Amino acid sequence: MLEDVGLLVLGHGSTLPYNQALVEDLAALIKKRHPGPVRTAYLNANDPRIPEGLLSFSGTGVKKIVALPLFLAAGVHTTEDIPKELGLPVGQMKGTIELDGRAVEVCCAGPLGADECIANLAYRRATEAL
Amino acid sequence: MLEDVGLLVLGHGSTLPYNQALVEDLAALIKKRHPGPVRTAYLNANDPRIPEGLLSFSGTGVKKIVALPLFLAAGVHTTEDIPKELGLPVGQMKGTIELDGRAVEVCCAGPLGADECIANLAYRRATEAL
Repeated sequence: MLEDVGLLVLGHGSTLPYNQALVEDLAALIKKRHPGPVRTAYLNANDPRIPEGLLSFSGTGVKKIVALPLFLAAGVHTTEDIPKELGLPVGQMKGTIELDGRAVEVCCAGPLGADECIANLAYRRATEAL
Repeated sequence: MLEDVGLLVLGHGSTLPYNQALVEDLAALIKKRHPGPVRTAYLNANDPRIPEGLLSFSGTGVKKIVALPLFLAAGVHTTEDIPKELGLPVGQMKGTIELDGRAVEVCCAGPLGADECIANLAYRRATEAL
């Protein structure tokens, strides 16, 4: 039941406003696709940070939370920093938190990766700059 | 004539291998779309760096080079660091370099941004993690 799954859309965060705008805009688009609650959180610089983002599902009744890092590639942020902030066991991408007195499974999705759609979009950006 | 345009695909760079793999994979996909020469360069940690990436178009006869940052959002890297490494005038996204004794225009594309295709891909990653 996807209704019982919370999505925590994660951004890098930035002192400039653009990363937060991107994350909020993408989260709004993802909300159209996902029947459960969708929240946002940031690794750095912007609020809420990731632990507060997990707690923001309080009261929703979700049974599972999927953290969704909006990062193109894996790196130190996605393999170490984000799992640590999510409270996952070292070296693992799944764990459990307590929320509203219940155990809620938390897992972390992979980065976007080198998909054809990214290549299309990137090439569009290149032609727009000409 | 797109044959006369060189694309310099730019990555953030990382001490882990994943960012370089992503950039090289996306550059390979972009090569299928672009009739002119395509090269890669990195802001940090990986080689070639951006100034060497520009010089790598020597001998190709390109009249213009478009730098294409593989970044989701604008930020300090795309608004300050990359333009500086490209040798662009402060605050501008276009300039000129000398290559093979000729003036070659250099311009910098925008970041990928909050496109529907990114939302689709991100949501696919979330469902894969379930």
